Amino acid sequence: MNMFLKNCWYVAAWDHEILGDTLLSRTLLGQPVLFYRKEDGTVVAMDNKCCHRHAPLHMGRKEGDCVRCMYHGAKYDATGACVEVPGQERIPPKLRQRVYPTAQRKRWVWIWMGDPALADDTLIPDTFSLAHPDWRWKPSYLHYECNYLLISDNLLDFSHLSYVHEKTFGGSPNIAEARPEVQRMARGVRVSRPVRGTVPAPYHQRLGSFEGKVDRWFRYDFHVPGILLLDAGVKSTATPDDDMSGALQFHSCQAITPETEKSTHYFFMQAHNFRLDDAVVTESIDQSQKRAFIEDKQILEAQQQMIDNSPESPMVAMAADAGLMQYRRLLSELIDLESKAPAVIPLIPVTP
Amino acid sequence: MNMFLKNCWYVAAWDHEILGDTLLSRTLLGQPVLFYRKEDGTVVAMDNKCCHRHAPLHMGRKEGDCVRCMYHGAKYDATGACVEVPGQERIPPKLRQRVYPTAQRKRWVWIWMGDPALADDTLIPDTFSLAHPDWRWKPSYLHYECNYLLISDNLLDFSHLSYVHEKTFGGSPNIAEARPEVQRMARGVRVSRPVRGTVPAPYHQRLGSFEGKVDRWFRYDFHVPGILLLDAGVKSTATPDDDMSGALQFHSCQAITPETEKSTHYFFMQAHNFRLDDAVVTESIDQSQKRAFIEDKQILEAQQQMIDNSPESPMVAMAADAGLMQYRRLLSELIDLESKAPAVIPLIPVTP
Amino acid sequence: MNMFLKNCWYVAAWDHEILGDTLLSRTLLGQPVLFYRKEDGTVVAMDNKCCHRHAPLHMGRKEGDCVRCMYHGAKYDATGACVEVPGQERIPPKLRQRVYPTAQRKRWVWIWMGDPALADDTLIPDTFSLAHPDWRWKPSYLHYECNYLLISDNLLDFSHLSYVHEKTFGGSPNIAEARPEVQRMARGVRVSRPVRGTVPAPYHQRLGSFEGKVDRWFRYDFHVPGILLLDAGVKSTATPDDDMSGALQFHSCQAITPETEKSTHYFFMQAHNFRLDDAVVTESIDQSQKRAFIEDKQILEAQQQMIDNSPESPMVAMAADAGLMQYRRLLSELIDLESKAPAVIPLIPVTP
Repeated sequence: MNMFLKNCWYVAAWDHEILGDTLLSRTLLGQPVLFYRKEDGTVVAMDNKCCHRHAPLHMGRKEGDCVRCMYHGAKYDATGACVEVPGQERIPPKLRQRVYPTAQRKRWVWIWMGDPALADDTLIPDTFSLAHPDWRWKPSYLHYECNYLLISDNLLDFSHLSYVHEKTFGGSPNIAEARPEVQRMARGVRVSRPVRGTVPAPYHQRLGSFEGKVDRWFRYDFHVPGILLLDAGVKSTATPDDDMSGALQFHSCQAITPETEKSTHYFFMQAHNFRLDDAVVTESIDQSQKRAFIEDKQILEAQQQMIDNSPESPMVAMAADAGLMQYRRLLSELIDLESKAPAVIPLIPVTP
Repeated sequence: MNMFLKNCWYVAAWDHEILGDTLLSRTLLGQPVLFYRKEDGTVVAMDNKCCHRHAPLHMGRKEGDCVRCMYHGAKYDATGACVEVPGQERIPPKLRQRVYPTAQRKRWVWIWMGDPALADDTLIPDTFSLAHPDWRWKPSYLHYECNYLLISDNLLDFSHLSYVHEKTFGGSPNIAEARPEVQRMARGVRVSRPVRGTVPAPYHQRLGSFEGKVDRWFRYDFHVPGILLLDAGVKSTATPDDDMSGALQFHSCQAITPETEKSTHYFFMQAHNFRLDDAVVTESIDQSQKRAFIEDKQILEAQQQMIDNSPESPMVAMAADAGLMQYRRLLSELIDLESKAPAVIPLIPVTP
Repeated sequence: MNMFLKNCWYVAAWDHEILGDTLLSRTLLGQPVLFYRKEDGTVVAMDNKCCHRHAPLHMGRKEGDCVRCMYHGAKYDATGACVEVPGQERIPPKLRQRVYPTAQRKRWVWIWMGDPALADDTLIPDTFSLAHPDWRWKPSYLHYECNYLLISDNLLDFSHLSYVHEKTFGGSPNIAEARPEVQRMARGVRVSRPVRGTVPAPYHQRLGSFEGKVDRWFRYDFHVPGILLLDAGVKSTATPDDDMSGALQFHSCQAITPETEKSTHYFFMQAHNFRLDDAVVTESIDQSQKRAFIEDKQILEAQQQMIDNSPESPMVAMAADAGLMQYRRLLSELIDLESKAPAVIPLIPVTP
């Protein structure tokens, strides 16, 4: 079975990673890809390996909308066609780099690694908080030495907040004890986990100065191949449900993109819509999230090592695995479908 | 063929490595194992990989005699049974960790990695000097990047003292030239190598201030799977054989435990029964031994690399290999027997 | 197919690497080899792995023209025969190390890794500038983490000077644009590439203070298995072709010797025959060459990683590949011949 779904949009980079003459080298789905920006601002994604002698193009030079390999001087345009070979007039048509469809949406650069004819940019999920005047945030990135599905698993079961993030996002076993509702969507799952009458997480307490118990909510769509759009918050149990005046509301956009079978890119941010002009709050939320994700990173990388140590050994399910198991099943069905008939993959837009 | 004998006792740790809330992670025979101590002081050895999603339990939390996985909160008791799953009432019986028999004897924690029904603690060799008022010593540990049999080989042929330890334990080619007597035991070999009228080793000279030639003796039992109990000493040739007044006598307990196919744990100490109240002597003996063992480590790790470079290449025997070849044959017979009929392994106690 | 040609001379070391009691350990063609010098100055090359228990002999001790393994004391003479086993009178004839023919020619130590009966030292190319009063140079060495053929490729297509060495040896695209002439020889290829009316390379400008355009020439024999003898130079276009008074002339001897399939030894120097008594010039040429070769090393190691990432992916040829393709074909024919009938390899001396 293929490890990766190809006919879907992956997040490849933050927009600010590709500026000016940058030749960005990034491996995605095991494939070394070169990224650069054309004069008109659109992003070119091209196989990073020069088809001549396999030197990496990111060690080359950007010349206008073209890139020149700095080993023997072959020059490729933005369509991947070789347009110059030093000392040679006729250019063999085989001297051509594969290029990938890209799209830029609100600070994220997306790439389509499958059949270009199927690349439909209406399938890109709406990451509204990445560019919205009511929300503030900072961009973040982490590199994980583990398979991307271990990160999906992690995101699809927030019971881990009570344990992995006991001292950051968690605070009590109550999150783990609250049963989540999981709904399947055409290209993802929706998970809701309300937690009522719990103690505030250390992280929330610092921001909200709550007195007494709080209600918390988590509701997110997790889209194929690994895009999480999270609506979360916390408010005092003492205020009515529809009174958001003292609440802390968050919206988080997170994207996991496989680098190789055993390593993953993680792009993320957590936006807040309160105290918008207080840079300290924005900074603190970013740092808290990063600190918590490093807790995830440590346990997931340790988990990967345990799995590598005896890959055949089975896992035993618990009730909390419902979300991740639905998602793994969905993804595996899509990968299976794709390998059988790449042309007829059900490119059904996400149910709103 | 299996690489390791399973139905036997291995040294897993020094007792002081598992104290209080310690969750010790140690890989033995390729298996990641978690060690912790119960309230009553006995040691629990459990697969370190949580059977739920394979997170390592040593990153978890000790709760009384139980351990909780700090990924999703599964809690296991000292028998390996899962006794709590957050947010779930019925616990699937498959949520269970494998536990291993352990035994503590005089500062060493032993583990039985094979069939628990066969674990017979009368088979543990008598390491008397590890807890005896007439002997002083310090505990030591080294990690070797080589297969455990290369260390057995090394210990079973003391001719290497003349070369590897020329400037520490050796001092002259006389040890290599003295032919050892090797006797086979039910679960090991006994090696005796008297060396008469030689120059004192640099190490002995510093401790004993000998004038003129000395006699040295080495006599040790080497037990399956890698326990060496050594009785050694040095005295002036000028004094009668039964006069031990000016002699330096040593007793050493050493245990080699495979970590993986290519790495090994080495637990050791060297006890002396003279100048008991002189801490400098104890310290100096410990340091001399460690310095010499690092000489072994360097040559054995280099040997492992040479073997890895061309694993098929045969070795050519010399007379000095008699001990190690007897031992390798014995071990290989036991491993062979075990793979054929694990229930009838000849668990004959060591001949005294 | 074999990766390496065996019946040929490889450069193993600079002469100054094997002095006095040096026991030099160097892996060649995947084989760990020990080098040391006999009292009469000739170099012994012997398998570095002691045939007894596979300890490396370079951790041993040189005793006259012999080497003693410092694990258990086996002593070998310069023919590889074991001449002493401590504590043992009869020495088994199987205790014998393989030795390899060597030859020293003008500062380089050569080794023949194939059938010793075929070792014919008239096949060693004439590296005259390595010992000639009219030429000055400094010896250099680099270790490359790539297959040796990637280095051959690099040396057989000087069009890379315009790109890889743009700021050192290159200076303009003119070198890449000049079409080289490639002639096949019995055991190599000859490449000539005259470049007329170009701008001087930054490196030449510093040495020669040219005014206006220059002519450059490169002419080299590239011998199996990887010996490059280069005659190169630069002179003002304003002076007649046969007037060498203001020219800078260079002669470079370079040797690439596989260490393993993925790593290579590179021995090289670049001699000059002008301003012989100016040590600054010699130093500066050596440093310029090393700086440029590090540019090669970076791109070749990156190329190796790209190839490893997808080894099956084909390369697409351009005209500039003519030299390297001829050479790869020749080498592959020789390796093929050798594997079929090692005795009849065409040991035809190089056409002058």
